[in-house]
Amino acid sequence: MAIRFLTAGESHGKGLAVILEGFPADLPIAASEINIELGRRQKGYGRGGRMAIETDQVEILSGVRNGVTLGSPLMLFVKNKDSQNWEKIMSPEKIEGEIKNTLRRPRPGHADLPGGLKYNQKDLRNILERASARETTVRVAAGAVAKKFLKIFGIGIQSHVIQLGKIRSSLKKIPKEVNEIADISPVRMIDKRAEKRAIQAIDRAKKQGDTLGGIFELILTGVPPGLGSHVQWDRKLDGRFAQALMSMQAIKGVEVGEGFENSEKLGSEVHDEIGYQKGRGFFHYTNRAGGIEGGMSNGEKIILRVAKKPISTLKKPLRSIDITSKKVVKAAYERSDVCALPAASVIGEALGAWVLADAFLEKMGGDFIGEIRDRHRIYLSHIKKY
Amino acid sequence: MAIRFLTAGESHGKGLAVILEGFPADLPIAASEINIELGRRQKGYGRGGRMAIETDQVEILSGVRNGVTLGSPLMLFVKNKDSQNWEKIMSPEKIEGEIKNTLRRPRPGHADLPGGLKYNQKDLRNILERASARETTVRVAAGAVAKKFLKIFGIGIQSHVIQLGKIRSSLKKIPKEVNEIADISPVRMIDKRAEKRAIQAIDRAKKQGDTLGGIFELILTGVPPGLGSHVQWDRKLDGRFAQALMSMQAIKGVEVGEGFENSEKLGSEVHDEIGYQKGRGFFHYTNRAGGIEGGMSNGEKIILRVAKKPISTLKKPLRSIDITSKKVVKAAYERSDVCALPAASVIGEALGAWVLADAFLEKMGGDFIGEIRDRHRIYLSHIKKY
Amino acid sequence: MAIRFLTAGESHGKGLAVILEGFPADLPIAASEINIELGRRQKGYGRGGRMAIETDQVEILSGVRNGVTLGSPLMLFVKNKDSQNWEKIMSPEKIEGEIKNTLRRPRPGHADLPGGLKYNQKDLRNILERASARETTVRVAAGAVAKKFLKIFGIGIQSHVIQLGKIRSSLKKIPKEVNEIADISPVRMIDKRAEKRAIQAIDRAKKQGDTLGGIFELILTGVPPGLGSHVQWDRKLDGRFAQALMSMQAIKGVEVGEGFENSEKLGSEVHDEIGYQKGRGFFHYTNRAGGIEGGMSNGEKIILRVAKKPISTLKKPLRSIDITSKKVVKAAYERSDVCALPAASVIGEALGAWVLADAFLEKMGGDFIGEIRDRHRIYLSHIKKY
Amino acid sequence: MAIRFLTAGESHGKGLAVILEGFPADLPIAASEINIELGRRQKGYGRGGRMAIETDQVEILSGVRNGVTLGSPLMLFVKNKDSQNWEKIMSPEKIEGEIKNTLRRPRPGHADLPGGLKYNQKDLRNILERASARETTVRVAAGAVAKKFLKIFGIGIQSHVIQLGKIRSSLKKIPKEVNEIADISPVRMIDKRAEKRAIQAIDRAKKQGDTLGGIFELILTGVPPGLGSHVQWDRKLDGRFAQALMSMQAIKGVEVGEGFENSEKLGSEVHDEIGYQKGRGFFHYTNRAGGIEGGMSNGEKIILRVAKKPISTLKKPLRSIDITSKKVVKAAYERSDVCALPAASVIGEALGAWVLADAFLEKMGGDFIGEIRDRHRIYLSHIKKY
Repeated sequence: MAIRFLTAGESHGKGLAVILEGFPADLPIAASEINIELGRRQKGYGRGGRMAIETDQVEILSGVRNGVTLGSPLMLFVKNKDSQNWEKIMSPEKIEGEIKNTLRRPRPGHADLPGGLKYNQKDLRNILERASARETTVRVAAGAVAKKFLKIFGIGIQSHVIQLGKIRSSLKKIPKEVNEIADISPVRMIDKRAEKRAIQAIDRAKKQGDTLGGIFELILTGVPPGLGSHVQWDRKLDGRFAQALMSMQAIKGVEVGEGFENSEKLGSEVHDEIGYQKGRGFFHYTNRAGGIEGGMSNGEKIILRVAKKPISTLKKPLRSIDITSKKVVKAAYERSDVCALPAASVIGEALGAWVLADAFLEKMGGDFIGEIRDRHRIYLSHIKKY
Repeated sequence: MAIRFLTAGESHGKGLAVILEGFPADLPIAASEINIELGRRQKGYGRGGRMAIETDQVEILSGVRNGVTLGSPLMLFVKNKDSQNWEKIMSPEKIEGEIKNTLRRPRPGHADLPGGLKYNQKDLRNILERASARETTVRVAAGAVAKKFLKIFGIGIQSHVIQLGKIRSSLKKIPKEVNEIADISPVRMIDKRAEKRAIQAIDRAKKQGDTLGGIFELILTGVPPGLGSHVQWDRKLDGRFAQALMSMQAIKGVEVGEGFENSEKLGSEVHDEIGYQKGRGFFHYTNRAGGIEGGMSNGEKIILRVAKKPISTLKKPLRSIDITSKKVVKAAYERSDVCALPAASVIGEALGAWVLADAFLEKMGGDFIGEIRDRHRIYLSHIKKY
Repeated sequence: MAIRFLTAGESHGKGLAVILEGFPADLPIAASEINIELGRRQKGYGRGGRMAIETDQVEILSGVRNGVTLGSPLMLFVKNKDSQNWEKIMSPEKIEGEIKNTLRRPRPGHADLPGGLKYNQKDLRNILERASARETTVRVAAGAVAKKFLKIFGIGIQSHVIQLGKIRSSLKKIPKEVNEIADISPVRMIDKRAEKRAIQAIDRAKKQGDTLGGIFELILTGVPPGLGSHVQWDRKLDGRFAQALMSMQAIKGVEVGEGFENSEKLGSEVHDEIGYQKGRGFFHYTNRAGGIEGGMSNGEKIILRVAKKPISTLKKPLRSIDITSKKVVKAAYERSDVCALPAASVIGEALGAWVLADAFLEKMGGDFIGEIRDRHRIYLSHIKKY
Repeated sequence: MAIRFLTAGESHGKGLAVILEGFPADLPIAASEINIELGRRQKGYGRGGRMAIETDQVEILSGVRNGVTLGSPLMLFVKNKDSQNWEKIMSPEKIEGEIKNTLRRPRPGHADLPGGLKYNQKDLRNILERASARETTVRVAAGAVAKKFLKIFGIGIQSHVIQLGKIRSSLKKIPKEVNEIADISPVRMIDKRAEKRAIQAIDRAKKQGDTLGGIFELILTGVPPGLGSHVQWDRKLDGRFAQALMSMQAIKGVEVGEGFENSEKLGSEVHDEIGYQKGRGFFHYTNRAGGIEGGMSNGEKIILRVAKKPISTLKKPLRSIDITSKKVVKAAYERSDVCALPAASVIGEALGAWVLADAFLEKMGGDFIGEIRDRHRIYLSHIKKY
């Protein structure tokens, strides 16, 4: 592990924070660049009212001077603009009297009940405030730094939604500039016909007080072969992607390339034949493996697909139990989205960038951009000469 | 992380080894118990000749005395019985003359090419020997210890194949004693009709010099709620399962519960309503979440599904490139299986048991079985009284 | 590792931050309690002008609600009050024009030169801002949480200075309430005669434009036996204390108990004979081992001694080289202290408390105070019954 | 962390094992080279009878082929030749009948009692077998690989004893080839007069049934500046050395350079002035800092001093308590050494080499020797041009 981070913050607390470190010195990074990613995370058809309240803005509190990194830890903070309304209820200091409106009706699908049991909390707000996907705000901020870093080495990461509820994108060919199109689609879909039907599906779900999930796809380009390693289980690149992506709120499935689909086929239909061209070096005729073989990048695009369940907070709530009275009740409802899949897709980009930057720095080592640039160049030339 | 392990060993070297540690003292464990798991890993219709050669037997070299653990690291070793035939070619010591028959034709789907590029190896045997799934032998050995540990606390882990090639198991209801049935099926399938067709599919693939993959399912029972945590990305139980399972050779997809399927549905169709019964405590009416909510176990069965690609080593090899001459060639073939999905299913049990034992020990702490037994009992009673 | 933290922040940036996690829910903690430790860190005879400017106040930004912890990460922030004067020079955003007054004369004894070389920085401020002991502010904040946690279990940590420059404390017997006396001594010395001479030594050094270091001693009481472990090198309690303490700025030596002194003696003069009393259980007649045997606490007081070199920033600077012109120059001088040993002693308390809380939680596991309290009680009774 | 290892094995079990990984491919290493280090560890005046029984020989079980590393984990095994006599008593399998001669009289200074309490063991052999310094055999083996690696880059590590019991080496100047002299001294002392008196001291202690400790010094040469980092507490090179060395059995103190001595002096007497010479680059006129400033190597020799307590197992045993009867008894005695300081000095070399190789690989990254050699060369040239 070359880079690491810890996040902190509650959904309605003062704000979200991340400390990240391990990036080299001399990486140019501005708050405005991080804010672009935070903005992308807040978009998407089907978001609730909160997205309008919070236009997230990062504050860089350390690790950057005069527009470039110092090699020291970055501390990024995103204020919860909403927090003034929650000041008393979320006060870190002991407040006078009892807290009112404690949350006692756990939502099926959420951390509420297992968290309440584990930490012995009788106000489930004490769990959900941290379990909320609001936490991903600062994972996106950390990922923005990783993306900026990778860009220097010609590595890009893009994403789009390939299924929303039952609506599937049926594009035969994915264009090169995925994000250019996905970023202006309200549902991050490239297939315009699917997009229209997806929007209708969201409207329908909203009317019913229901929610929707789906699948998004990450595409990493410009990745040199040989990142990750086959030598020990926890160095394998695919495993590291899987953990990072599955650790996102509401994610229930991850596949590399055509993972589940390929499990049905014959070996001869699945594996990507190897070719060689002078000047270009080794390549594969197809990319069903999704760019990873033996736990290492193989020089092709890395393709990851991630399945998100529908949001657990329902306007038309499901059956639950009041944790105090043990009576059957309807689950709690707190302002929420109908569909956050486009946001999840952007969050996925951040996590994917993080994992790859980590593997890249493991391979390259180094403490300032110039040094790493040299090593990258020499490595690419080694790959070609091999 | 409460427990940890490192494996070592090449496929045709002297043997495979694992050092594992963090388990408490006083856990009864015998080589024979580990050997049962090693034996289960070696079974399955569609295995090649090597399985007959190697009847794996573990040697416990440390950490156990008079049949119980000491709290110190366990060192488990499994000899490669085949190794005498490879003594010269795999010699750690410098040998006279050059190594003959270097492996220069990378197999599509394997670590051969990216590993060769990363480590600058011109004999691809230097990569494949470690990348081979033979390494999982000792991960199964380590998992056998984890399984034995979990059993004390009433936690079981079972597995079965739910899809082999295109053949799907179409059982409506999974019986309680999955392994009793799966262990005597040549393809670990419970649905007898599917089993028959799966065997035929393997025969067909074999005749064609081709290979098959599929999907297996893990089922963990008796898991108390509150293992893992929602508070930080790398403490989430689902992410940790995903990494461990995706780190298995040839695995390309992981889902928790009905992960990909649920991504198509409405929230109200997906989330598991919460109930309560005196004496039993909280429960869910369904288990579509696969026993994990908010990165924590929720008290239901944990269900994980894992997609394996067909084996990469084909008797009827795919197109490749000779890494020295850069000529187009057929990929290398070395004795291999047609289908190793039943074995993968057993390996998955080991990895699943490992991850759960880790999360369990994190929650419980403690250094000897009696101490942990007390804590487990008190925790279960806390859960009921909550 | 049960708890972990990352700090961030530059000495003249916006502030210092720490994210810490792994503590259970329900731990009562208030900003005022942390501020007491921050205040103790700022005291001491021989501090420079900055200590007057910055009266450090912590802001709890997450992880605590209504005066108790939630089990989620704590994010603690300490503003640099001085920072407004440095706004332009330390701006994270790109500034117009060049930065003036770049620091080019590395100070002997500091990170300036090795850091400049490693990260290829030509303004050494980019190194020293992070290398500065100002960073310990938030390590003390994190340690304050650890101390509060340990206090619940009757574990206390105190410190005093036993040598300042050449002046040694010559007390025969250390009183029980060390901190009560040390906290009101300007040099944290308990021996009043030594204290007086130490103050004179500081005055003398100040007049000469010179600096002083010394040795402080940590005393941990109420520690149950069996924390840490002998089974693997990185689980040994003494090694973990040694790393944490040596990682403090300007620390050059650590010993456990009478470490260096005991190396001169015979075994029969060094090892602590074992006794037993009904009701009390096992004990040692002496404590030359400093409370740690075999990498584990042994139930006696843990005693650690830590050697600090004199401060590297000298008003009467040493010889150095201008990194640009390569000319011989005097090293840079920036407002600094003459002696920061009393502060170091308080910082040492924080780090010692952190390491012990980590080992304690490893042994106990658990996610809320009540649960851990039960386990602690049962463990103490096991120790007595053993 | 770029490299890592786990050891396993009991003192009278089948043998000791280590799995280590993270070293690049193409490192030449032979069992004979590792055996040289194992042999150096077994020498020294004052060792007991066991050293004659066990002439340790390593078996390389993985990770090396045809005399060079593969990049995969190395598994090194050292058989306990003595083990046949202990076969029944140390059997991993359950034995018939009870174990006789359980060890119930804990030795003051040893892990016996705290380990027995922690793991609830009533036969203290279950603790001491792992706590024994015999475990260091394989840490030395791992260190031998690290040493071989560092040697390629011109980095050497040597050691000598500077104090044995009360006898101090009083050399003014340390010769360059420390190990050439120390390796042929029975007490690893360079000062011949001190050596003679040290041998007499051992003879005296032996006659009295007593034991001796002392201080050894590690010297690392050829270390480039900028290894380790100031940016986070656990990246500091001095802290990492301190943990590794303090984790050795019987070590109670560690200092960097003239750590404790310097704590008495004025800053102007302690800090090493900086010079510059064309061709040579930056240097320091003195090296009181022991080659580390701000948690990083500074280009000078790294000097570490380590204090070892006398061996805890005394032929003339101290007072103890029978853990079953609670009666006052003499502590257990099992064949042991009078003084193991020369061995400790060699073990210290191994651990020092390990820490430095780790920091070196963090800085350089890379997966095969050629790649790292290039990066090292470029970095050295950057240092000179800076």
